[in-house]
Amino acid sequence: MTDFAIHPQLIKDCVLLGRFACSHVLLMNNAGAPWIILVPQNTIGATELTDLPRDTQQQLLDEVNLAAVVVKAQPSVEKLNIAALGNMVPQLHVHIVGRSPSDYCWPKLVWASDPGPRYEDAAILLWRDLFSQVDGFSAASL
Amino acid sequence: MTDFAIHPQLIKDCVLLGRFACSHVLLMNNAGAPWIILVPQNTIGATELTDLPRDTQQQLLDEVNLAAVVVKAQPSVEKLNIAALGNMVPQLHVHIVGRSPSDYCWPKLVWASDPGPRYEDAAILLWRDLFSQVDGFSAASL
Repeated sequence: MTDFAIHPQLIKDCVLLGRFACSHVLLMNNAGAPWIILVPQNTIGATELTDLPRDTQQQLLDEVNLAAVVVKAQPSVEKLNIAALGNMVPQLHVHIVGRSPSDYCWPKLVWASDPGPRYEDAAILLWRDLFSQVDGFSAASL
Repeated sequence: MTDFAIHPQLIKDCVLLGRFACSHVLLMNNAGAPWIILVPQNTIGATELTDLPRDTQQQLLDEVNLAAVVVKAQPSVEKLNIAALGNMVPQLHVHIVGRSPSDYCWPKLVWASDPGPRYEDAAILLWRDLFSQVDGFSAASL
């Protein structure tokens, strides 16, 4: 897995919070909606969720569930949008977005909306702390 | 499971092709992009993928894989968009959309675009025939 690298566009748009066994955990730098992106590590060349071997898919799904718990615990989140899209960034990645009828772009999709405000540094640290309470999460240096 | 019914908005927008063990298989009536929707049956009250028990999630994921094979086999499909959204229709459902840089709304998402043209009846029958070749699929009457 020496050649794996997170896509530069994801690095630009997000903050790397850390990783689970299968996937890297990124926070989209958009304070308008809680928005986590999982990038599975052992998937060089895979662009589709359905390209992955079944056991890797299931491990990734388990990590989606873990991230969903953190996102759903955020104030005002009433709905999740979970998606593997990739029209813009071909590297396989899964979005877990917490939505609310009171958020900055409801009911439009976040991918079809202008970016919301960026996070304060303290808020990013708080996100990392929240994930650090999840079993199997290893925090990155910020 | 006597109270389960597919959401009226999905019935309005789609054609019911049949079902797998876990989920009903709908074809979005949009000839602009191959677009399948899976609606899991045994999920009354569930609105999120992550609300489902792990074994149901995995069964649904297996059926997403089966649908993805059919969608990817369509001419010109180069990319899948797989998503559980639900901002408009709260009933849990999973989209499997085949995309191509030459399709009617690339690179915009289908959910953020005007509908494409509707299918001819013969094309809908062909879709049902394609799924009828998949193990575990039971075709609906059209």
